[in-house]
Amino acid sequence: MKDTVIALLEEKKFSELYRLFEQSEPADIAACLQSIENEKLPVLFRVLPKDIAAEVFVEMDSDEQEMLIRSFSDKELREVMNDLYLDDAVDIIEEMPATVVSRILANTSPADRKTINQLLHYPKDSAGSIMTTEYVDLKADFTVGQAFARIRAVGPDKETVYTCYVTDQTRHLSGIVTVRDMLFAGNDAIIGDIMDKSVIFSHTADDKEEVADKMRKYDFLALPIVDAEQRLVGIVTIDDAIDVMEAEATEDIEKMAAITPTGDTSYLKASVFALYRSRIPWLLLLMISATFTGMIISGFEAKLSVFTVLTAFIPMLMDTGGNTGSQASVTVIRAISLKEIEFRDILKVIWKEMRVALLCGVTLAAVNFIKILLIDGLLLGNAAVTVTVALAVCVTLVLTVFCAKLVGCVLPLLSYRLGFDPAVMSSPFITTIVDAISLLIYFRAASIFLPI
Amino acid sequence: MKDTVIALLEEKKFSELYRLFEQSEPADIAACLQSIENEKLPVLFRVLPKDIAAEVFVEMDSDEQEMLIRSFSDKELREVMNDLYLDDAVDIIEEMPATVVSRILANTSPADRKTINQLLHYPKDSAGSIMTTEYVDLKADFTVGQAFARIRAVGPDKETVYTCYVTDQTRHLSGIVTVRDMLFAGNDAIIGDIMDKSVIFSHTADDKEEVADKMRKYDFLALPIVDAEQRLVGIVTIDDAIDVMEAEATEDIEKMAAITPTGDTSYLKASVFALYRSRIPWLLLLMISATFTGMIISGFEAKLSVFTVLTAFIPMLMDTGGNTGSQASVTVIRAISLKEIEFRDILKVIWKEMRVALLCGVTLAAVNFIKILLIDGLLLGNAAVTVTVALAVCVTLVLTVFCAKLVGCVLPLLSYRLGFDPAVMSSPFITTIVDAISLLIYFRAASIFLPI
Repeated sequence: MKDTVIALLEEKKFSELYRLFEQSEPADIAACLQSIENEKLPVLFRVLPKDIAAEVFVEMDSDEQEMLIRSFSDKELREVMNDLYLDDAVDIIEEMPATVVSRILANTSPADRKTINQLLHYPKDSAGSIMTTEYVDLKADFTVGQAFARIRAVGPDKETVYTCYVTDQTRHLSGIVTVRDMLFAGNDAIIGDIMDKSVIFSHTADDKEEVADKMRKYDFLALPIVDAEQRLVGIVTIDDAIDVMEAEATEDIEKMAAITPTGDTSYLKASVFALYRSRIPWLLLLMISATFTGMIISGFEAKLSVFTVLTAFIPMLMDTGGNTGSQASVTVIRAISLKEIEFRDILKVIWKEMRVALLCGVTLAAVNFIKILLIDGLLLGNAAVTVTVALAVCVTLVLTVFCAKLVGCVLPLLSYRLGFDPAVMSSPFITTIVDAISLLIYFRAASIFLPI
Repeated sequence: MKDTVIALLEEKKFSELYRLFEQSEPADIAACLQSIENEKLPVLFRVLPKDIAAEVFVEMDSDEQEMLIRSFSDKELREVMNDLYLDDAVDIIEEMPATVVSRILANTSPADRKTINQLLHYPKDSAGSIMTTEYVDLKADFTVGQAFARIRAVGPDKETVYTCYVTDQTRHLSGIVTVRDMLFAGNDAIIGDIMDKSVIFSHTADDKEEVADKMRKYDFLALPIVDAEQRLVGIVTIDDAIDVMEAEATEDIEKMAAITPTGDTSYLKASVFALYRSRIPWLLLLMISATFTGMIISGFEAKLSVFTVLTAFIPMLMDTGGNTGSQASVTVIRAISLKEIEFRDILKVIWKEMRVALLCGVTLAAVNFIKILLIDGLLLGNAAVTVTVALAVCVTLVLTVFCAKLVGCVLPLLSYRLGFDPAVMSSPFITTIVDAISLLIYFRAASIFLPI
């Protein structure tokens, strides 16, 4: 698409460009425009069919949006702002520098400006911050025919018309009715009779992840949001909930890798310093924690210098412990975040992991025993590798796997119970703890098996 | 809810139970029923209002579904099967033993049976395997009034009515029209005039993740699926696409922790042996790979026995290398899977990671230098810890961080380029490779700084 667009632009074939844009999806047009040099953007943007310009604008990154806004005349800016859904407008405004923000607000209708200011006011990550105020509200005494008339009248500006919200005089939510229900009920049915009165909703202050979880659980296309007085103030639509779910998964993955979540910035747009800042605290913390592992080795130094062969197995033991531990922790963390397990399942989880640990530990020890004697002993001809050394290593392996699986499944559940994020109790932390444990077991086993 | 249900059941207050179920969401009822002993399930299920029984059934786990099917009379089974959407029926059938499957199919209408058999035939993870054949199809010469009449006639059995598909005589997809468009166009408009002709679709054989990606990208509520001859055969609805997105994230997370993805089974339902099987291959592979690390240490053994103090820093160097490497790899893997970066961005990625590595490496080395001299040297009074040792450790740290970030960002991109799953090139693999690299650097640095 990019090459065609550039070619048509250079030949100034604007009506062909218009037709091409008309037949394309806004998301594709946005991706194409972003890959073209910035100076050509304003011209291309003006060629866009009016009815999709705002949709294309929403799909672009904030750098390009800012550039475009700066190139817009006040009239153009007003047109785009007018066509934007207010929740999208708020998302865009949040990324803009102050001067651009005040120009945007100056070119917005007073009613929209008021709503935008209210939406900007909700705390980050709250349900209020991702909701839209543009929903269709109906009264319980409407007929379906009246309801359809109202949808036709107010619908074009609303993000979804398929779920409508029935409110009373005090703006309290009394029910929900879908266009599907209305279609099947016929024009003369009364909304109050066909609406669903048992309404699931969230509060503006709820975490946006709770909103996404509810929508996934109940397969909703939209969820109503009420304020502290239980009055309907907005809805969250499924496309925004999906973005929250994706962001949630990304955050979990980042935390599991000892990275402070970077937020909405995409990798290529994130600054080097932002990446540094999200990574260095954990690296420092984990590096300092490794002091303990070092102290354990120092304490055993004298004996290690006699049986130097023992040192060669330290990395394998540490890595295997870390890997088995993070397998358990990652599985448990994901199960917690998908609401498959609760803290009360802790004994079931431990019992399951202990049996898995037994199977894994014995398998690893058996394979390793043979490997040590055959490869390290015979093949590489290391005379220091005796059956006793192999035994010490393999006993350590079995015990380490047990401890690692235990630590790996218990710590995330504990941290969840204490109200912390379980994802932080993942690979790097588990690894650091398991390192120390595996070395303690190793040196103890060595002291028992070898004449130290 | 659980306690109320049990109390009402014991007092045989079935009409109150009925009213309670009537006011609850199917997902909540299913969760509640699952937590109650199995023998009470058939009775409770029979109390459910007929119009939500199938919805509750779909939300339950396959064990409970099987138990219920076995308790159903043929008439009850026919009723439930009749109310199920066919894609849900297929999901349920896939989990049942052969005897139950043949009883289910015997109690399904011939037309449904044919469709179910077709759906069962699509390869696992294909678009065909998650689509439903129950969509509303319209003809281009219908008026909106006729279209609404058709929706009313066929709609109750269709999973979504909001997006309708316009097909020609040969069942080729000629356009898409939404109920929203129809509402705004008015009853006399012709479908062919208001439908969207530039249709985005997937093929039955496409990967289901591609389907989910498309729906996320374009904010669709449903995506049409066509066969090899471009004929419309089904649609994928957003709720199923969300399940695919979640499963995708879980798989990525599992692979990053060196676990073979376990599929749809929830953690508590997964057998110990299934967990063992998904974890042990990687543990074995990584354990064997650690042989190289062991060989590197063995090769340096003689010198290590002179400068035993060097051994104490091995865990810290290995862990820091592993942590920095997995930070880079996890960030890159997630960016690839969210389509933020492509292989062609590799130089940009390397350049970014190198600058982050410089900042991280220098910070870590500076802090570590002070820590070694103050804590290990002065506080713990280890005379072997000299400035030269600290220098050797810190130079290793900087170089290791560089190599780790490089390996961490390049390997996932390379494996993506070669058509492998980048998620496999994550923490455990990176750690094993970086372990070897960091030891080589360490021993080289030690040889240069210390009189070995």
